[in-house]
Amino acid sequence: MYSFKNDYAEGAHPRILQALMESNFVQEDGYGGDQFTQKAIDILKQKLENTEVDIHLLSGGTQTNLTAISAFLRPHEAVIATSAGHVFTHETGAIEATGHKVISVETEDGKLNPAQIKEVLDLHTDEHMVKPKLVYISNSTEIGSIYNKRELTDLKEFCKEHNLLLYMDGARLGSALCSTENDLKLSDISTLVDAFYIGGTKNGALLGEALVICRNSLKEDFRFQLKQKGALLAKGRLLGIQFYELFKDDLFAELAQHANDMAAILRAGCSAAQLSFLIDSPSNQIFPILPNYLITELQKSYSFLIWEKVDSTHSAIRLVTSWATKEEEVRSFVKAIKQIVDAKRVI
Amino acid sequence: MYSFKNDYAEGAHPRILQALMESNFVQEDGYGGDQFTQKAIDILKQKLENTEVDIHLLSGGTQTNLTAISAFLRPHEAVIATSAGHVFTHETGAIEATGHKVISVETEDGKLNPAQIKEVLDLHTDEHMVKPKLVYISNSTEIGSIYNKRELTDLKEFCKEHNLLLYMDGARLGSALCSTENDLKLSDISTLVDAFYIGGTKNGALLGEALVICRNSLKEDFRFQLKQKGALLAKGRLLGIQFYELFKDDLFAELAQHANDMAAILRAGCSAAQLSFLIDSPSNQIFPILPNYLITELQKSYSFLIWEKVDSTHSAIRLVTSWATKEEEVRSFVKAIKQIVDAKRVI
Amino acid sequence: MYSFKNDYAEGAHPRILQALMESNFVQEDGYGGDQFTQKAIDILKQKLENTEVDIHLLSGGTQTNLTAISAFLRPHEAVIATSAGHVFTHETGAIEATGHKVISVETEDGKLNPAQIKEVLDLHTDEHMVKPKLVYISNSTEIGSIYNKRELTDLKEFCKEHNLLLYMDGARLGSALCSTENDLKLSDISTLVDAFYIGGTKNGALLGEALVICRNSLKEDFRFQLKQKGALLAKGRLLGIQFYELFKDDLFAELAQHANDMAAILRAGCSAAQLSFLIDSPSNQIFPILPNYLITELQKSYSFLIWEKVDSTHSAIRLVTSWATKEEEVRSFVKAIKQIVDAKRVI
Amino acid sequence: MYSFKNDYAEGAHPRILQALMESNFVQEDGYGGDQFTQKAIDILKQKLENTEVDIHLLSGGTQTNLTAISAFLRPHEAVIATSAGHVFTHETGAIEATGHKVISVETEDGKLNPAQIKEVLDLHTDEHMVKPKLVYISNSTEIGSIYNKRELTDLKEFCKEHNLLLYMDGARLGSALCSTENDLKLSDISTLVDAFYIGGTKNGALLGEALVICRNSLKEDFRFQLKQKGALLAKGRLLGIQFYELFKDDLFAELAQHANDMAAILRAGCSAAQLSFLIDSPSNQIFPILPNYLITELQKSYSFLIWEKVDSTHSAIRLVTSWATKEEEVRSFVKAIKQIVDAKRVI
Repeated sequence: MYSFKNDYAEGAHPRILQALMESNFVQEDGYGGDQFTQKAIDILKQKLENTEVDIHLLSGGTQTNLTAISAFLRPHEAVIATSAGHVFTHETGAIEATGHKVISVETEDGKLNPAQIKEVLDLHTDEHMVKPKLVYISNSTEIGSIYNKRELTDLKEFCKEHNLLLYMDGARLGSALCSTENDLKLSDISTLVDAFYIGGTKNGALLGEALVICRNSLKEDFRFQLKQKGALLAKGRLLGIQFYELFKDDLFAELAQHANDMAAILRAGCSAAQLSFLIDSPSNQIFPILPNYLITELQKSYSFLIWEKVDSTHSAIRLVTSWATKEEEVRSFVKAIKQIVDAKRVI
Repeated sequence: MYSFKNDYAEGAHPRILQALMESNFVQEDGYGGDQFTQKAIDILKQKLENTEVDIHLLSGGTQTNLTAISAFLRPHEAVIATSAGHVFTHETGAIEATGHKVISVETEDGKLNPAQIKEVLDLHTDEHMVKPKLVYISNSTEIGSIYNKRELTDLKEFCKEHNLLLYMDGARLGSALCSTENDLKLSDISTLVDAFYIGGTKNGALLGEALVICRNSLKEDFRFQLKQKGALLAKGRLLGIQFYELFKDDLFAELAQHANDMAAILRAGCSAAQLSFLIDSPSNQIFPILPNYLITELQKSYSFLIWEKVDSTHSAIRLVTSWATKEEEVRSFVKAIKQIVDAKRVI
Repeated sequence: MYSFKNDYAEGAHPRILQALMESNFVQEDGYGGDQFTQKAIDILKQKLENTEVDIHLLSGGTQTNLTAISAFLRPHEAVIATSAGHVFTHETGAIEATGHKVISVETEDGKLNPAQIKEVLDLHTDEHMVKPKLVYISNSTEIGSIYNKRELTDLKEFCKEHNLLLYMDGARLGSALCSTENDLKLSDISTLVDAFYIGGTKNGALLGEALVICRNSLKEDFRFQLKQKGALLAKGRLLGIQFYELFKDDLFAELAQHANDMAAILRAGCSAAQLSFLIDSPSNQIFPILPNYLITELQKSYSFLIWEKVDSTHSAIRLVTSWATKEEEVRSFVKAIKQIVDAKRVI
Repeated sequence: MYSFKNDYAEGAHPRILQALMESNFVQEDGYGGDQFTQKAIDILKQKLENTEVDIHLLSGGTQTNLTAISAFLRPHEAVIATSAGHVFTHETGAIEATGHKVISVETEDGKLNPAQIKEVLDLHTDEHMVKPKLVYISNSTEIGSIYNKRELTDLKEFCKEHNLLLYMDGARLGSALCSTENDLKLSDISTLVDAFYIGGTKNGALLGEALVICRNSLKEDFRFQLKQKGALLAKGRLLGIQFYELFKDDLFAELAQHANDMAAILRAGCSAAQLSFLIDSPSNQIFPILPNYLITELQKSYSFLIWEKVDSTHSAIRLVTSWATKEEEVRSFVKAIKQIVDAKRVI
């Protein structure tokens, strides 16, 4: 049984484990006061071509989202997200638990645009309603789509004009930036959003997200927020070592590229088998629509998520690839599809 | 420069890193649904001699405290802790951030007893005040003292009688249980408290605390709390692998014993040099009172915390040992004390 | 200029002011410990034909909703409401500010039914999502519709079966119960929901809502919640005196009946002028659809809310009547409509 | 039985009830958008000799404290108060329920001074602890003492220097300002603190506190906070009418003066009977120390609070006077003391 269920099924890239081994007995200060965290932050600033940002390393995406968003907002301020947005549906009300409403917008492609945000603003007219303040986007999105530079620039300008904060959840930012359809550089992002995070957990780390705070007014006292929300690891070195390893010579990009390459093979294989897709997702998640018999057959050897029922005989599935996905397994999966489909046709 | 500043200055015990390496490419479900987490939970229940408890693995102490306590209390209910209690002073108001007051009690020895709790209850008489509900104790305490079986039993009985919850912060539980003055077994604890955690971070793990929920009424839906508070790691295996390794053949106890042994050498060395102690702490933290000239000399080769000024020429320092503390460094430190003190006497 | 904008444009019914005058110099205990509050609670229990409920008097609707709901839910539990629900849109995120998500359901008629709730439950399948726990309904709803006994019974049974709490916002319960289409008695309600409140502010009081807690498990320590949320008035008598006056001989029902009667005249007048309605609302709020020229003319002498644009030449307006609405003004308004419409036709 | 238990035992000053009657049928906008609220705010600004402040009318003290303080602080910021401070002990953790720790300071006289605050700041050194940000004082204090101009100016300067906010709870501000020992004018206060409130409930109103926000940076979007915390009354006129009546020709000061005069008679009577006082409180609360037999005798005709046991034969009691306290009752009480004491002496 091989899994395409998610991009966190394995441990960490071996170079990361190696780095943990090598540094293991060096004594360091706790809570991120260690040399490794500092080196990680330095290399990240270099890659971002921006030394003015503040960078903090956290353990996971929900933790990063809740710590950042609750720190950035006053009590009456709210988040705008798509209804597929991770903070809206898949974080057990973590944002609301810190006191803030998440306003959702229905979208086709998982992406927010200024017109949609404008509609929300127009509905929130006075103090009897929350005040929409932070626009939450994910790149890549929860359904694998990505923002291009034009789209992100439009959002930035709209947010600036309307005094909104723009926050990007980058749990899968590596995959987005390595997409063949991407025209954004990592160094563009800190000039386009107010804060974002670079996901490590889904791109080769054991755990870890690097939160980048770009807007000056959001930086003050952020370490207090980390501690209060339980996000300051005693052995902060664990995060520093990993991010340094991921960025010191572009391992991060290599791993994301591999994940995307594997997804491309899966995508091509599905297309070759005449399968259509629920959405055009040029990253490491794809959503082919399969006849149910094919799903049943594939489930004998592969695990994956059934995303949604399309009609009485078809469902969309989700296939996710990662830095650890094996090319031979991908090719076997594609071959299996072809064989099962061909066999069916013959019958 | 060798550090006695804390018990989280190094990485993890090599066997833990080894276990991470060996399991690295096994595909597992996320969020604690993996075989390693299950094995860790199973071995822990076995060691606790209690299969009825619920066990959850979290990343750190503050995270564990805030997730558990906010899950256990209703909005008007409060925590009772010593004024040295970690939740009262050193977690940046994490408990208050979830809505609950922490009521503090001054103590000499860092421990709570029924009489002190009774005084708090007597002051909280009606709905204009919070309702004290959860008694928070640490074992070992923040100043290295430990609870014996009689003391813990008394607390349990008092709490039961007054409908209070008893919660033990076990960040340094290993050291407490391996103390020469200890008469508690790990298997006693789940019968004496309503919930507690077993600290991994300060006893050989990269990170990780095992929360044990003993009281049935506190168990329901706890995984929702984990997710909401950002405490559910995508790669939950990281915690499972470590706790399994720590407990499968008593590595946990071995490491704590080593830390205590190292502290014992330091304690004996201080005593031999006629130094007194701020508090009698039979665990891995000791608080000798040193003349200031001695502190100044020692600081040239060792780092440690200056805990508090005792008089114009003396201060108490805190020395912490861990699973990773090297005996040769401990012996050098003791020798250094003797030499400096002797040199001074000669003059 | 006469206002049909809301049902809180005037002060209180004169009998209430009279009662305040008469009791003014009687010394009483504070915070609801006075004889008037006790009398109000006693008479309410008598009217409810239920002495087992707990009753608390609060100042306003948002305060009542947030205090009750936050007391009833654990951190991960969420509210289900219609997208028109007051807690979802018009309380500035008051529920979220206490930590709980409000899940919204689109409806035509402002009412929730079991099938809609079932859909929400089906989407919330595990601990990565909030757990829907409390069903929030308003009677009458925010758009003037009302629940009948069958509908409420169905909800009750569904909630019981799915372990959900059923909570009714009764800001306009008086109007609902006095509707010609109503078949519920006040005494039915405490047997059908877990908690509800009887709105005084919109039915003759200066301020005041009577929260009725029916389910035993929700009653404990509720006065602590009142105090913590700032809902316990020092001069609780102010609420007690009013509710006693409203209920001691059915003033409450008389006032609601008057409001409904006035709405009925408006409704009939609009129908007579061939106007249609956005929704069938048999209570004290009506939503006729008017040609824009008619709105413009009416605005010269009357104030009311423009509810929503219907097409390029028509909008729905909201007309609200109350205990204080003057019949002569209502009749003048109806006459004005007729005259303006007739004049237009002649042209 | 006559009560000296508190200053909220009666209703409202008759002129306030009269004003409610007279305005009762004037139609006004809700939620503070009425002419009466505007007039109240205008007259208050005039009395404060400061048109730059923002003023909001709320229902009670706990509500005002929690709404203001939670609006003013970021998540990691904390309050400093005396251990007698209302927010620390008598508001059921209302501040903590909004997420903020209240740090307490022991005092003799119920007042905070810069040296005490400095000690708190010195203990809070890094992100592992909350950040003290808002200094909460009450004037008069919970034990009847008052701040003079020098003390308040010192606090203001210290707070400015250390970037702290200074907030004054003025539940009994009227009594403080009318004290014979007071040298502060109402118009001084808005220049000395960042925000404060003027208590109506304890000085002649049915309910109502006027929050004055002096510092510009605290003003933005405050009405959102009011609504979110359930503090925005639908019939905001109820508060506006009362505050306008209290301030349009100094009724507020007259009522406070009466309360203080009544307390002065009680104080003099106690002194004449050779009784000492627990604290020197020059306002409407006094704390004479009585032999227990005297307490027992007085309790037959008067109700009051037994504040604390002083020794085996004496206790301090609290006597509170108000705008409504009757001089004849005060004189009877004094006479009763004299008679009982004299009778005892004879024996």
